[in-house]
Amino acid sequence: MGRPRTPLLDRRRIGAAALTLADEKGALTIPALARALGVAPSALYHHVSGRDEIISLMREELVRTTGADKVWAQPWESGLEDWARTYLSAFAAHPGAVPLLATAPLAEPFMHAMYEKVAALLVSGGFTADKVLPVITALESFVLGSALDLVAPSVMLSDVSRDTAPHLSSVLEHTPADPGRAARAFDIGLRALLTGFRDLLAP
Amino acid sequence: MGRPRTPLLDRRRIGAAALTLADEKGALTIPALARALGVAPSALYHHVSGRDEIISLMREELVRTTGADKVWAQPWESGLEDWARTYLSAFAAHPGAVPLLATAPLAEPFMHAMYEKVAALLVSGGFTADKVLPVITALESFVLGSALDLVAPSVMLSDVSRDTAPHLSSVLEHTPADPGRAARAFDIGLRALLTGFRDLLAP
Repeated sequence: MGRPRTPLLDRRRIGAAALTLADEKGALTIPALARALGVAPSALYHHVSGRDEIISLMREELVRTTGADKVWAQPWESGLEDWARTYLSAFAAHPGAVPLLATAPLAEPFMHAMYEKVAALLVSGGFTADKVLPVITALESFVLGSALDLVAPSVMLSDVSRDTAPHLSSVLEHTPADPGRAARAFDIGLRALLTGFRDLLAP
Repeated sequence: MGRPRTPLLDRRRIGAAALTLADEKGALTIPALARALGVAPSALYHHVSGRDEIISLMREELVRTTGADKVWAQPWESGLEDWARTYLSAFAAHPGAVPLLATAPLAEPFMHAMYEKVAALLVSGGFTADKVLPVITALESFVLGSALDLVAPSVMLSDVSRDTAPHLSSVLEHTPADPGRAARAFDIGLRALLTGFRDLLAP
């Protein structure tokens, strides 16, 4: 018997299936992933050593499909903005995987390659070495939270009473109830963060 | 037979158990919650109408136990900072529940009461009505992402190669590997956001 031309499992399929599963269930277990792929858990272990490696494959798939490893522009402000926007799209496509990916250590060379580009951008922009990682981390936290907001309903506050919450009611009347709600909040927050980061450059 | 003095279920116990469950599993289903409480699903429905009401109870428990509904200080910058810090503690205590709570509509009067205080703070600080909700939303996104980072390992980047990632290696040498990593990133990001928000007040 010849071997099948297309292997039933490969690392890329595992990464994509794990992303989908984490997205739908908010959690990832080896038995559930094996079920989703239609194989026995033992077959999975032919390809990956365990959960940590699966999370790496998820990251690889995310970075590969969205180009979040590219930091296009100089100077640092437009480069950081480009990176934040690509990163937002990547995570907004997989909101259920956000907590998993946000809390697993980053040991993968392709993730280091991405952070190397962002670090070089900030160092060349004049940030001192002790500020670079806190700035990257703060921006990532904002992007992760915004990705969750992007998949939330376009109207989050409803049935607000004018009697008990007059300021909030008035503010809501001035806030368009449309799908652009989360994107506008992201724009204002990103602009504010970049403005504030620039202040860290002051001598 | 007399009725038991302590009811087997009450709304507060349901909210607390749902928070714990979402925290551990990253997901919430009625059957799983009933199992965790040691009752039949039908018993749960005597107390809540469904999933939305359970999410409300989770929010109520979170706000009640952490005081995130208090906005203490004037002027707006210190008030907003106090709120962000309390909100961070609340969510960092329940990271698995973050995606669920971040994406469910806010229909509860006690949540409206919290947002009313923050909205009043910003309006009195001089923000125009169209800016208030985007500012609150951007700050919340940053807080939610930071809550996930706060429960991540204190060393997120490991085994970085000096050859392939020289900037990142150098930056890591200047970054203390200690439990304060996430707190420092939060401080820098919060300061940057407040600085940037202040710019929105310019005429």
